[in-house]
Amino acid sequence: MINAQYKEMLKGKSVIRQLSEFATKRGQEIGYENVFDYSLGNPSVPVPKEFNDGLTEMIGTLSSMELHGYSPSVGIASVKDAIAESLNRRFGMNYTGNHIFPTTGAAGAIAHALRCVTEPGDEVITFAPFFPEYNPYVSGTGAVLKVVPADTESFQINFEAFDEIMNENTAAVLINTPNNPSGIVYSTETITRLADYLYKKEQEYGHDIFLISDEPYREIIFAGADSPYVSKFYDNTLSCYSYSKSLSLPGERIGYVAANPKCTDAELISVICSQISRGTGHNCPSSMMQLGVARVLDLTSDMSVYETNMNILYRELTALGFEVVKPGGTFYIFPKALEEDAVAFCNKAKDYDLILVPSDSFGVKGYFRMAYCIDTEKVERSIPALRRFVKEVYGRS
Amino acid sequence: MINAQYKEMLKGKSVIRQLSEFATKRGQEIGYENVFDYSLGNPSVPVPKEFNDGLTEMIGTLSSMELHGYSPSVGIASVKDAIAESLNRRFGMNYTGNHIFPTTGAAGAIAHALRCVTEPGDEVITFAPFFPEYNPYVSGTGAVLKVVPADTESFQINFEAFDEIMNENTAAVLINTPNNPSGIVYSTETITRLADYLYKKEQEYGHDIFLISDEPYREIIFAGADSPYVSKFYDNTLSCYSYSKSLSLPGERIGYVAANPKCTDAELISVICSQISRGTGHNCPSSMMQLGVARVLDLTSDMSVYETNMNILYRELTALGFEVVKPGGTFYIFPKALEEDAVAFCNKAKDYDLILVPSDSFGVKGYFRMAYCIDTEKVERSIPALRRFVKEVYGRS
Repeated sequence: MINAQYKEMLKGKSVIRQLSEFATKRGQEIGYENVFDYSLGNPSVPVPKEFNDGLTEMIGTLSSMELHGYSPSVGIASVKDAIAESLNRRFGMNYTGNHIFPTTGAAGAIAHALRCVTEPGDEVITFAPFFPEYNPYVSGTGAVLKVVPADTESFQINFEAFDEIMNENTAAVLINTPNNPSGIVYSTETITRLADYLYKKEQEYGHDIFLISDEPYREIIFAGADSPYVSKFYDNTLSCYSYSKSLSLPGERIGYVAANPKCTDAELISVICSQISRGTGHNCPSSMMQLGVARVLDLTSDMSVYETNMNILYRELTALGFEVVKPGGTFYIFPKALEEDAVAFCNKAKDYDLILVPSDSFGVKGYFRMAYCIDTEKVERSIPALRRFVKEVYGRS
Repeated sequence: MINAQYKEMLKGKSVIRQLSEFATKRGQEIGYENVFDYSLGNPSVPVPKEFNDGLTEMIGTLSSMELHGYSPSVGIASVKDAIAESLNRRFGMNYTGNHIFPTTGAAGAIAHALRCVTEPGDEVITFAPFFPEYNPYVSGTGAVLKVVPADTESFQINFEAFDEIMNENTAAVLINTPNNPSGIVYSTETITRLADYLYKKEQEYGHDIFLISDEPYREIIFAGADSPYVSKFYDNTLSCYSYSKSLSLPGERIGYVAANPKCTDAELISVICSQISRGTGHNCPSSMMQLGVARVLDLTSDMSVYETNMNILYRELTALGFEVVKPGGTFYIFPKALEEDAVAFCNKAKDYDLILVPSDSFGVKGYFRMAYCIDTEKVERSIPALRRFVKEVYGRS
């Protein structure tokens, strides 16, 4: 019999995906270049040339077994070592290859990290606004996701609300900085306060509380933003990374879990992750992709376009009277809608070919997300549409 | 806290992996070319040149988004269509792309197929000898694996023992043909009898019983073997395939689930699999690898070496008086050990630098597996060692 739970999931179609499909369909009518599609977080800038050159060189020089052979179940040792060295150099950490577990992107990293440090029935706390896929990641482990309401003034952590939700069953806290959808980066002050609070609670409860830090946007930081490396502040940290955004490789499914060398069972996290992989049939990411990223660890795509786009949108939204916290990174911005019902607001925007994502699925009401990982030229062309929308529907100009 | 169940799994180290590590270590002492390592099923022949040429061409011609961009969560449509067409052409099926779900190899395919058609607590039946990783695949879903004892005369299905284990809680039957570790291919007679039996039981119980057919060795068939396409015989079949062996791409983690177009909810299997992927963070295989295999679907590596090796070993083992069923495919052979305790037998073989895998972890006692995906030259050099071992330890010649 077909599993009833998974079949039921088919009914809950992703809002983002529906909007993206609407944008594609509308594009067939008026030309996709005329649809101001801010729905999807799909990086628009190309992979660094060095990455593709590296693949070509490996195809020409490595044996079939070296290039396409089985990865050890904990990942390719030389790749793990190279990732550890790069993190140590950049962030002053003390990782060895044994602390690194290569995964199929941040999704794979979070799914493994969660299974590693929770038992079914445990609670995992995250903070609104949050990436909606945290729901299946957590429910897939048998744990329960608890959401701390947003501090909409700053989109930093709402510590009072956090303290109300924290309890003895809390096994892990899941954060995402720089944040999808708000674009906000947690400050050194926020991370320090978070670490102090978690240390205190670990002592009070007498058990570990792991911090799972989801960091796919770590390299997309704008001028002036304070962007601390989370794991430096709290020993029981598992950093979940993806090359999807920094190298524009979302389809290659490559990232890692990095266990803080001082966390509980630090030397075991990677091997436990490999055991988790056995049951999900997940195994390691592509050998060729592991070898490919290891050659360009300190490179990123040219991501300057994201900051250019952010500045245009921030300036314009502010001028139009939107309440909006200025992003410190990512390629998202998260303004307050001009009416309480963000779904209604975003539906009305469709008439102006503006594809905006209502905030409801991110755990906040009354806001909307714009994913501006698109050409600057299109962002500029969208401004007149935005102005007309705001003027004609809400009487603002 | 670290999950206790996964931590416990660390104690149960794979016998095959331990033997492989022993072989590597021994190789450091005497040169690996002098270790007759029959432990691992790691394909030794290179990928077809056309595959690597295709990757190089795509790197030169496709845009970064086309090559490395997100795959849709159900897989890349053109790849799914191409796989369906190839299967239809070769096996007279009627798949469309909607019936195909690209996975990270057969491991990913089985893990998804099992989750798709079982509920926690359901029973899944498989047949000894079987691939030991079926244990974590099934337990990871919350279902229970039941093992039908081997028919050691032929290594076809022991239907009497099967009938004793089959019951109303059986949700799925998991077969592997051509078989690891026996090398046996289920005959048309076996598959026909299996299908008739399952149809009868579906009617008796009033619910679906899915047949999950694990087929990574489907293209490694020796002269004269009768190797029917399983899904042609039984509607509720999910075929689990991998390119690991046929294209020598085990590290690239690429394969698929193909749902028989007549199975229950045939059009939904692929989308349900994509929902399952959300929770495990598994997502799709690498976009580049999906596109890469789609260009060479009707090719395989030159696998003639496996049949050459099998013939040498079968002739020699038979001459030495081993009881052994002649393989019809794969790169495994599964003779009866010369004493009851296969672990003791394989331990004694180590003194002759023969690395053989005892059958216990495959669910049968008293046999051993040889993985002969190695150079023929090495197989030939191993024969004198095999003869000395058998003569000196067991007095046979």
